[in-house]
Amino acid sequence: MTDIEARLDAYIEEHRERFLEELFVFLRQPSISTRDEGMGECAEMLAGLMRDVGIETRIIETPRHPIVYGEIFKDANAPTVLVYGHYDVQPPEPLDLWTSPPFEPEIRNGKIYGRGTSDNKAQIFVYVKTMEALRAVTGDVPLNIKFIYEGEEEIGSPNLEPFIRENKEMLKADLAYFSDSHIHESGRPIVILGLKGMLYVELTARGASTDQHSMRATGVPNAAWKLTWALNTLKAPDNKVAIPGFYDDVRPLTNLERDTVAQIPVDEKELLTYFGIDRFLPGRVQDGYYYNLVAEPTCNIAGLDSGYTGPGSKTVLPSVARAKIDMRLVPDQRPEDIMKKLRAHLDAEGYADIEIEEFNHLIPSRTPIDNPALPVIVGALRDSYGKEPIVFPNIGGAGPNYVFTDILEQPCFVVPHATHDQANHAPDESMDLEGFFNGIRTGVRIFPRLATALVRN
Amino acid sequence: MTDIEARLDAYIEEHRERFLEELFVFLRQPSISTRDEGMGECAEMLAGLMRDVGIETRIIETPRHPIVYGEIFKDANAPTVLVYGHYDVQPPEPLDLWTSPPFEPEIRNGKIYGRGTSDNKAQIFVYVKTMEALRAVTGDVPLNIKFIYEGEEEIGSPNLEPFIRENKEMLKADLAYFSDSHIHESGRPIVILGLKGMLYVELTARGASTDQHSMRATGVPNAAWKLTWALNTLKAPDNKVAIPGFYDDVRPLTNLERDTVAQIPVDEKELLTYFGIDRFLPGRVQDGYYYNLVAEPTCNIAGLDSGYTGPGSKTVLPSVARAKIDMRLVPDQRPEDIMKKLRAHLDAEGYADIEIEEFNHLIPSRTPIDNPALPVIVGALRDSYGKEPIVFPNIGGAGPNYVFTDILEQPCFVVPHATHDQANHAPDESMDLEGFFNGIRTGVRIFPRLATALVRN
Repeated sequence: MTDIEARLDAYIEEHRERFLEELFVFLRQPSISTRDEGMGECAEMLAGLMRDVGIETRIIETPRHPIVYGEIFKDANAPTVLVYGHYDVQPPEPLDLWTSPPFEPEIRNGKIYGRGTSDNKAQIFVYVKTMEALRAVTGDVPLNIKFIYEGEEEIGSPNLEPFIRENKEMLKADLAYFSDSHIHESGRPIVILGLKGMLYVELTARGASTDQHSMRATGVPNAAWKLTWALNTLKAPDNKVAIPGFYDDVRPLTNLERDTVAQIPVDEKELLTYFGIDRFLPGRVQDGYYYNLVAEPTCNIAGLDSGYTGPGSKTVLPSVARAKIDMRLVPDQRPEDIMKKLRAHLDAEGYADIEIEEFNHLIPSRTPIDNPALPVIVGALRDSYGKEPIVFPNIGGAGPNYVFTDILEQPCFVVPHATHDQANHAPDESMDLEGFFNGIRTGVRIFPRLATALVRN
Repeated sequence: MTDIEARLDAYIEEHRERFLEELFVFLRQPSISTRDEGMGECAEMLAGLMRDVGIETRIIETPRHPIVYGEIFKDANAPTVLVYGHYDVQPPEPLDLWTSPPFEPEIRNGKIYGRGTSDNKAQIFVYVKTMEALRAVTGDVPLNIKFIYEGEEEIGSPNLEPFIRENKEMLKADLAYFSDSHIHESGRPIVILGLKGMLYVELTARGASTDQHSMRATGVPNAAWKLTWALNTLKAPDNKVAIPGFYDDVRPLTNLERDTVAQIPVDEKELLTYFGIDRFLPGRVQDGYYYNLVAEPTCNIAGLDSGYTGPGSKTVLPSVARAKIDMRLVPDQRPEDIMKKLRAHLDAEGYADIEIEEFNHLIPSRTPIDNPALPVIVGALRDSYGKEPIVFPNIGGAGPNYVFTDILEQPCFVVPHATHDQANHAPDESMDLEGFFNGIRTGVRIFPRLATALVRN
């Protein structure tokens, strides 16, 4: 460890309690993008926190939720890193399954519990405090940094791509970098080179024009049965998606990617216990948990709703039935192509009258595994965590990495600091306390090292 | 028409507005048995209305909702009719589909709109006003009448059978009689000789121990998929129930029953328009709407619930999925036997871990079509409606007729006065105004005629 890095670590340790207090204020502010709850207030709060550490920050409006954009300018010849993240969170329901209220963060057993703790508020706040520490200890941030903190990640980032397309010059950088998802369950840090794409749809089946008394079930079609039969044609119990052509454009892993995946340590027994299941679903090509998480697309029922779902019994013949379905895509699948194949499949199976509404879509992305920034990032992580990092060619989570890799043509690295039991998108979401501080310790190492490694000749 | 019958009709006409005012007070009182809403209050109100017309009335407690029991005693040698009905109603949801609030009855286009109007409050109030008219005009009710108005019909009448078994002597009668369901869509009155049975269950499928981020869908089982696949094994798009042995005990219609069903007039095109569908589901034996309604059992999905069902998108992998299913049974199917077959089928199909909770069950029943009271009832209906009655060996609705036919060993006749577009169990339930008054006009004819026809020799 350099002397400077030791002083940076000491600064972080010294201001630990204040960093947490500031983070808790940020966590208490709801920012539920899908329901438009608290979004403007949260953007203003984040901008204030960024300005407090010397980041020149603006709130840039979009058609729905604003982007909080910040810049630190070193000089025109210095390398530039584009830091991305999101301040919006998932809805907290079901509320009765939370141990403490979702927007009243609480520390228990070394974790901060609350909605949006790990996904993504603590993990974006890391870079705010990284800037503070670098400035306070070294008097300087040694390269140019641009921050894009958006408010629409949990609803599929509909306005990020237009923003990126319209601001290509402003957003020029040597690489894109951000913290989301989680480190390995062994506690080893990871670097993620790719995120999955997404097609999120709602299927609506209809029967009679209104709900009917269920005695009429001998003759009147039931929307819930129609939906059940239609869903059954999408995926069978063998776990293979049965939409014709669904797997056509799945890009096989390269040999290096496959070897890298094979090096990911895994205790499948421990994972099974964590999930509370007996066995993992069968894979299409092979059965490894990580191989499938990295290489395979999904077709997941995220919600089913029809008829009477309250307490007790009601003998109703439902006129409407709905399924929310998210399909996580891998390179080189394209959401619009999968949408067409889904429509054609339902038509061919006799379900032309089932409506498909698209809620959002994302193109999958995977940064080349031989990029020269990768060893720098791996080295910084190794030093701050004291553990050997693991590289993922991509992970199971979806995200808008294609806007960096495809539109801005920047390699994109995701470096998580949450733990695998973070329960993001679920009740009792948490952020590991040490993950939060490891994030800042990684930040104060990685930016100076990238400044040196990427310097223009 | 006899002179007496003319005077009875005149009395009914004269007191029309008051009868409606009294009925509306009764309709405004919620009585949702499945949620225990307003049940005690409604029982008290009904008892008061019955006492007002000289019915000796008691409220008899059961383990859940009370039975309102009343008697009019003529003499020990007079015939006795047991009048049955229910004062409980279905939940009104979804509330946003009601034109006027469910518990604020309103007359529009000759119909009274509100929850419980046709099913069953107006149709039980008919007999209260029948007693009033008979007493006022003739000074007498010419036979013995016993009233059982229960509060648990919409939840499967769990306490009716014990009540009947414990009170066989008190409930002795020559026949059981009640008004529920609806007249034919042509406007012709009907007599129903049988009701279907019922097995209402909730299936619960489970995956991981808690909801998961849907990125884990490559490996972690999804409860909604499991439920979908399991439901798909219960009934295929051909509309035949696929549970082995489900149809084993279905009693074929006798020749007379089959001929009687064939005489039921039907305008299938009009029915299709009413339901807003293109065609009826295919039948197991034949395709007639009424043949199937009378002769065939059902397996109906009444509710589906899993994962996120709110607005917008949420990428969750549900740990629990539930389906409410009602199966309407015909003689000689037995709910406990069907339950065993369902469990065995799910086990055999690999769904031994899907839980089945029984909410309620009813044994099906069918009164012999050659009973001597039938022509008396048909004659009275013909005179009060001025239209030829139609006889149904049974209908699609379920009900506890077996307690009369099997336990009390009484023939049981159901004589509806609601119209087919009553929308019972659905939003905008209604009771036809003329149906209500036809009910009273039928009542004042049928009891005196039965008194004569059934007199003991």
